[in-house]
Amino acid sequence: MTTPAANFGDRLADAVRARGPACVGIDPRPDWLPEDVLREGDIGATLRAHGEAVVEVVADAASTVKLNCAFFERHGADGWSAMLSIARAARARGLVTIADAKRSDIGPSAAAYADAFLGDDSPFDAVTVVPWLGEDGLTPFIDAAHRGGRGIFCVLRSSNPGAERLQEVETADDGPLWESLGRTLAAAEKPGSSGLGALGAVVGATVPDAVARARRVLPAGWLLLPGYGAQGGGAAAIVPALDEAGLGAIVNASRSVVFPWRADGEAPGPSWRDRVRAALDAMNSDLGSATRRE
Amino acid sequence: MTTPAANFGDRLADAVRARGPACVGIDPRPDWLPEDVLREGDIGATLRAHGEAVVEVVADAASTVKLNCAFFERHGADGWSAMLSIARAARARGLVTIADAKRSDIGPSAAAYADAFLGDDSPFDAVTVVPWLGEDGLTPFIDAAHRGGRGIFCVLRSSNPGAERLQEVETADDGPLWESLGRTLAAAEKPGSSGLGALGAVVGATVPDAVARARRVLPAGWLLLPGYGAQGGGAAAIVPALDEAGLGAIVNASRSVVFPWRADGEAPGPSWRDRVRAALDAMNSDLGSATRRE
Repeated sequence: MTTPAANFGDRLADAVRARGPACVGIDPRPDWLPEDVLREGDIGATLRAHGEAVVEVVADAASTVKLNCAFFERHGADGWSAMLSIARAARARGLVTIADAKRSDIGPSAAAYADAFLGDDSPFDAVTVVPWLGEDGLTPFIDAAHRGGRGIFCVLRSSNPGAERLQEVETADDGPLWESLGRTLAAAEKPGSSGLGALGAVVGATVPDAVARARRVLPAGWLLLPGYGAQGGGAAAIVPALDEAGLGAIVNASRSVVFPWRADGEAPGPSWRDRVRAALDAMNSDLGSATRRE
Repeated sequence: MTTPAANFGDRLADAVRARGPACVGIDPRPDWLPEDVLREGDIGATLRAHGEAVVEVVADAASTVKLNCAFFERHGADGWSAMLSIARAARARGLVTIADAKRSDIGPSAAAYADAFLGDDSPFDAVTVVPWLGEDGLTPFIDAAHRGGRGIFCVLRSSNPGAERLQEVETADDGPLWESLGRTLAAAEKPGSSGLGALGAVVGATVPDAVARARRVLPAGWLLLPGYGAQGGGAAAIVPALDEAGLGAIVNASRSVVFPWRADGEAPGPSWRDRVRAALDAMNSDLGSATRRE
């Protein structure tokens, strides 16, 4: 795979301008899959058939797909292989691809993770990382992103109940811990011509004020807002995430778009692709209403 | 693979009593491998040949092996498959197996990671986890460990320069952040008959006083001390980690035992197995001197 030449921030800006801020999350649960993707006795082929079908359905109405590594790793090497195949298919369709891997390590181990997800052979444009090991844990990922025209999304402020106790703790002299880490990222940023760069953040859309604070701390960082739909997040959360050009944020929906039958209780049926597309269209309409400038 | 019936803490105690506290870290770098394990054009077979050879060499003189997932993931599905094969071989030889995966997520994603590493089909006895997402990020791993007789090692205090700023930050009412997280783990602990349980921690052996503090915070938790050898850690660090029975800690050496030729500059040569074993024997002798009770 050739190295993407352009700055990640600019590439994502192009994708969002063309197809909007929706990010479709692929978190496959075997029990939830439609019948026509099941490949008897071959979980790798099953995951691949499903993921590639989703990619086909969403490719012209989403900027990004986010593959949740946990749901592939649990199926071992076959799952890993399926994950890479789906990401390659998505990239071939022009989607920006994110590995939701939440990796975290230091030194050569962090460099190896960065190589796995951001190296020249990776089908991913970006990876999510966790900052618990501090700045020297982030540096190998930052360097790999800058080197290869790829990106990272650092999990700065998550919306789960247990997160506040850690992430909002006050540092001695630099504000809440997650904001302080955000400033470390911002200092390493190299924005492209869009004004946006490679070093973004994951910020829970349901945490009051967090999105606006993240926008201030990371003026050139893309914000990935998870939790649209199933986790109770709405489209309005994107508004404070946007920069003056109306760019700067993508909104992830996983279950609510990819498995709409989990909400309405009806079996996926043979027209499941239409239902996925309808859920994405509704999300895009919702996002469009929220972000339309008066 | 059948579910291990015994409490993880007790199983690790048996292994350490029988073969000592050395944990051999398998972090394979293609450039460092001895010639006789190279399988032309097949990185998976190469990693597997190397890892299984290391397992054979160390099996009767170490309690544990720790496989660093980063160095396998960078080789995609072939690497993942090799990692699982090596872990199976180690487990078949009676070694306790640790996946150094540093995983971190919440809800169903964390449960999927826990299933990948601690599920009934996993060849790993334990996995390292990162606590940035707080208590609800740890719970799925804790539950899986208790359910299956497996363990976790939570990265509480790492020894890299950037760690102090995060991990030692003072919470409003519960001391340094990492100690507070340690108390959360300790509250969920279920010690076995050895007095030790499933919920351990990774603590940098080169951080002054951190090992003794971790011992106090996690009275029933195994401590995994990385950094012996190559990272400047010595055997003395284990002393404050031990409980009254002289148990409670394992000491990891990766490069210094598995790739001793990186220190002395001589090619691995055909007798590389002997050099690995000699390095492990020297480490065990060093640990024995440090822990011998007067």
